[in-house]
Amino acid sequence: MAEAIAHELAKKQKEISVAEFFERNKHILGFGNPTRALVTSVKEGVDNALDASEEAGILPDIYVEIKNHEDGECKLIIEDNGPGIIKRQIPHIFGRLLYGSRFHAIRQSRGQQGIGISAVVLYGQLTTGKHAKIISKIQEDRPASLVELAIDTNKNRAEVISQDILHWDKSSGTRLEVSIIADYKRGRRFVYEYLQSVSIVNPHAQIIFKEPDGTEHLFERTSDILPRKSIEIKPHPYGVELGTLIKMAKNTKSRKLSSFLKNEFSSMGDRTTNAVCEKAQLDKGLDPKKMSREQFLALHRSFKKVKIMAPSTDCLSPIGETLIKRSLKHETQEISPEFIITASRPPSVYAGNPFQVEVGLVYGGNLPKDKPVKLLRFANHVTLLYQQGDCVSTSAVSSIDWRRYGLDQPSGKGIPSGPAILLVHVSSTLIPFTSESKEAIADIPEIENEIKLALRECARKVQSHIHKKVRRTKTREKFDLITKILPEIAKKSSNILNKPIPSLDKVITKIMDVIWIEDLIEYEKASPKSTQTTLFDKSSESSEGGWITKSTIMIVNYKNQTQKFNLYAVIPEDAVVGTVHPTPSKITKNYIQWNIDDILPANKVDIYFELAGLDKGDFDENDLYIENINPAYVIGADKWEGD
Amino acid sequence: MAEAIAHELAKKQKEISVAEFFERNKHILGFGNPTRALVTSVKEGVDNALDASEEAGILPDIYVEIKNHEDGECKLIIEDNGPGIIKRQIPHIFGRLLYGSRFHAIRQSRGQQGIGISAVVLYGQLTTGKHAKIISKIQEDRPASLVELAIDTNKNRAEVISQDILHWDKSSGTRLEVSIIADYKRGRRFVYEYLQSVSIVNPHAQIIFKEPDGTEHLFERTSDILPRKSIEIKPHPYGVELGTLIKMAKNTKSRKLSSFLKNEFSSMGDRTTNAVCEKAQLDKGLDPKKMSREQFLALHRSFKKVKIMAPSTDCLSPIGETLIKRSLKHETQEISPEFIITASRPPSVYAGNPFQVEVGLVYGGNLPKDKPVKLLRFANHVTLLYQQGDCVSTSAVSSIDWRRYGLDQPSGKGIPSGPAILLVHVSSTLIPFTSESKEAIADIPEIENEIKLALRECARKVQSHIHKKVRRTKTREKFDLITKILPEIAKKSSNILNKPIPSLDKVITKIMDVIWIEDLIEYEKASPKSTQTTLFDKSSESSEGGWITKSTIMIVNYKNQTQKFNLYAVIPEDAVVGTVHPTPSKITKNYIQWNIDDILPANKVDIYFELAGLDKGDFDENDLYIENINPAYVIGADKWEGD
Repeated sequence: MAEAIAHELAKKQKEISVAEFFERNKHILGFGNPTRALVTSVKEGVDNALDASEEAGILPDIYVEIKNHEDGECKLIIEDNGPGIIKRQIPHIFGRLLYGSRFHAIRQSRGQQGIGISAVVLYGQLTTGKHAKIISKIQEDRPASLVELAIDTNKNRAEVISQDILHWDKSSGTRLEVSIIADYKRGRRFVYEYLQSVSIVNPHAQIIFKEPDGTEHLFERTSDILPRKSIEIKPHPYGVELGTLIKMAKNTKSRKLSSFLKNEFSSMGDRTTNAVCEKAQLDKGLDPKKMSREQFLALHRSFKKVKIMAPSTDCLSPIGETLIKRSLKHETQEISPEFIITASRPPSVYAGNPFQVEVGLVYGGNLPKDKPVKLLRFANHVTLLYQQGDCVSTSAVSSIDWRRYGLDQPSGKGIPSGPAILLVHVSSTLIPFTSESKEAIADIPEIENEIKLALRECARKVQSHIHKKVRRTKTREKFDLITKILPEIAKKSSNILNKPIPSLDKVITKIMDVIWIEDLIEYEKASPKSTQTTLFDKSSESSEGGWITKSTIMIVNYKNQTQKFNLYAVIPEDAVVGTVHPTPSKITKNYIQWNIDDILPANKVDIYFELAGLDKGDFDENDLYIENINPAYVIGADKWEGD
Repeated sequence: MAEAIAHELAKKQKEISVAEFFERNKHILGFGNPTRALVTSVKEGVDNALDASEEAGILPDIYVEIKNHEDGECKLIIEDNGPGIIKRQIPHIFGRLLYGSRFHAIRQSRGQQGIGISAVVLYGQLTTGKHAKIISKIQEDRPASLVELAIDTNKNRAEVISQDILHWDKSSGTRLEVSIIADYKRGRRFVYEYLQSVSIVNPHAQIIFKEPDGTEHLFERTSDILPRKSIEIKPHPYGVELGTLIKMAKNTKSRKLSSFLKNEFSSMGDRTTNAVCEKAQLDKGLDPKKMSREQFLALHRSFKKVKIMAPSTDCLSPIGETLIKRSLKHETQEISPEFIITASRPPSVYAGNPFQVEVGLVYGGNLPKDKPVKLLRFANHVTLLYQQGDCVSTSAVSSIDWRRYGLDQPSGKGIPSGPAILLVHVSSTLIPFTSESKEAIADIPEIENEIKLALRECARKVQSHIHKKVRRTKTREKFDLITKILPEIAKKSSNILNKPIPSLDKVITKIMDVIWIEDLIEYEKASPKSTQTTLFDKSSESSEGGWITKSTIMIVNYKNQTQKFNLYAVIPEDAVVGTVHPTPSKITKNYIQWNIDDILPANKVDIYFELAGLDKGDFDENDLYIENINPAYVIGADKWEGD
């Protein structure tokens, strides 16, 4: 009887094609409902377009159009000016799930899985029964290819319905037209917001978004510089799994263990290779194809016992603090927040994959005081819109006790409430998304820890900012009082005594007993370009190098002794320093340093510097530090803690 | 130049095998860290074992053993007494991702994806480089097959390393031995808790768990009845996507549209089929293989315009309120909660997939008052341990304003705080998990809505419970006061007047002016079985039918008029009613009804009934209702609102 059952069951056991799997489980790919399906489709198309252009070193020009038909059917068009796709590859790229160029490469890119764009085609076919149309052109003087295709889900292969060549007035690029069931009315806002945030963190891209009613939104290119191209690297020994090591050795072309290690891993020079082999008690000349599991195990263990240089981080391309600040400023333009703070961590590694964390924090202004703080999440320059509850950034934020940083948080855990917005960006060669829809990052302890460190740094800056503000306000009150009342008293007393009004500088100085530092920032248009007609762009005046940021710092010595100290002004890494006076003692990419010599009591020193390469408002507050003086005497700058 | 790039890129574009994909993205499958990897491996193995045994109608005997080796390597052994797997299928079942029997069947089962168990083998190979060993026996009088295998991840195929036959002292079953890197020390507790909760909601299964130090835990079988076997159904027209309809028509054996509809869909009888075709203006005799997209579109639209019977829900197998209560009782045994409440919704449908929601709520006792309420989640009888933040049950709980139900919740949104535990179980033919790790259910509006309705029902019961309690306490205080003070006054007055002490019944009745209902529940061992030696089992005394629940209800008429009304006692569906007196007027599977005739003032009626088929404590409080009387007069029962 049991046998009959096993055979009966065997009849039902069969292969499930990956296309079939995702057809049934489309919510895993982010197509769970018609609103989200629209956003996911746009997102996959735009991510792909940006990756393709950047890979080819082309400044991306992206066109997104949505046509709204009856019964919830939308036609989505996404066009780029990338390098195009050769005709033979079109059916594979768009008509097969798990097919692509970025999966096997260890470097930062938006797409990683080879699922996204074909999932859009699959979803379209599933919900509308229509074929997808792809046009691609790879060379200026040749025609474009047109391919119309469907996906045979049983086989996970494209079924080419028709092919043609056509004239396309474009030097190169790719255009996808796909019909999907989508809720345009509800999804509209998310698509717009998504494209806006893409545009902010990708200032080198121009995006045009055409709505069904014909309205065109232009998100202008505000920088002509492509982000640093991430370099493909080899796997790092620290992160490689034993099984992967064995598989790599099986497939290697190297005939010796030493060359296998040097050729196929990063950070493995002669010395490290020797050290590893010695630790593992393995002959460097061994044929890697013939090694036993035990030998691999010894090798794998010895990796962890030898100090191996961290993987190169050229494979990473962070957003940068200026862009983060700009993004947050955009998010809060109607809120006039009190301040925006950013922090970025040095690159780190989880399971051999390099990654880097950057965070930002907006505080105060009209932000609601009783609502949970808003959390903006990015991964590899892509906005994450859904599944916040399950994202490592959420757990990192939740695990910090924000009460001491002035936010409300019952029992010191969970998302805090208060007038703040947090931004978290993780860049990595392999973002560990919790699912194929790429909306949440898995709870990898190393990543969580780095996010926490970055957030705490931000929070500390908030604390010091609030502290500084309180002190400055108090001192100013005192100062106002003194400078109003004392002269009055002096005047009246002098009148009575019929004596000249005495100079009060020394008295004021004695009462104040501080060094007062105040700053002012102004912007000036540097080299006006011809104004372009723009359909839609709030920051259309700004273009690369168009603004000079002018910073004036005034230092007054209200102490009764001559003062001498060093002053540091922190500047954005991507700023170019122009005129500076007085002559600074040091300029690095992160700060300018002055030796302030002998300011006499009641005397004043003015410092001035200019920054180029920033947008208006990118640098809107000086971050000042002092050295060789008791920081308790100074209002307006903190203690310098070193580079 | 662009052409060169397109060709360059084409060289890198290649297929990604599904095994390779998950090898790289193992966190998606629930193997993100060594603790979780252990829990996931046990879970996948046990789910598989339960599914296999149940499918074959065998009461599951499951053996789980973990051996802990050095360097974080664990050997995991999972053995069942299921029907076994025929030799030819073993490499496919354990050595290929996306292969199985349950994906293509529309019915409730734990496994759905054909990924789980081969993912465990893949993870083991990746982290330890060792092969998996599978032993399976399909017939009592024949030897077992032994297969040792690896997974060729480039091809997603098993690589059989060795095969053998051996004697296995078992009538049938399957045993998997796999070595994995896992954190046993941290994962231990989760594995134990997981198996415990599996045992609670699967009382028909016996599970033995052997720890590395030799400790054996026995989770005993407490019911000999297999859960209702879920029946495979055909897809329902309401949920089928247009693309799927076209694909089904392409592959059908039916030559006519009418037979295609009747044979391949559920709920499509002659009348409905005719109505659908008519609405779509399609000839019933059309060859489905030759229909155009427009014809399919018309057909698809007409599905929604015709009233089609809901799909049969035989394909579902809910947990049942008794087991939910038992599970919650177990969870709170050291807390002595005030009450436990359950609610279950009728079956419903999302995208054509039948589903059903059951919830439970524990309130009061020693539960912490200032912590967020604990949420226990189940899907198809499987405990969900991770990714709570992203689960539809979390969003359903968060969207209810719990403040009016006595819980704390800032701004009326989010997980409430207070002395409560919530349980949510969703059963469905297709649980829309957010990822392959099957830990969170996607935010499908229909499911969220059903969970909300069920939770609200629970919450209302909480409210009425609290209300009832308050009234009862107040009345009892009054009663205590009256019955203590009045007789004293009467006694003293009588003494003074030298008269006999008068009967106070009428006076008490006049002052009380209520009908007082009180109940008592006792348990009695029915048919003692021979005690078995158990290594570990907290509920070892209980075995199927071993307990009789005895319920006594006392009704006292403290009103000054004769009373007449109907009383309803709600009973669990799975209970068997034994002795009842007085003779009830009606017994259904849900309640017992009595016509209470003419209780004179100050008189009392006793009601008694017995329930069999429940565990000690399953039924620990009567749920009483009254009819044909003003409920304001009654303490201890609510208004009957109908069946």
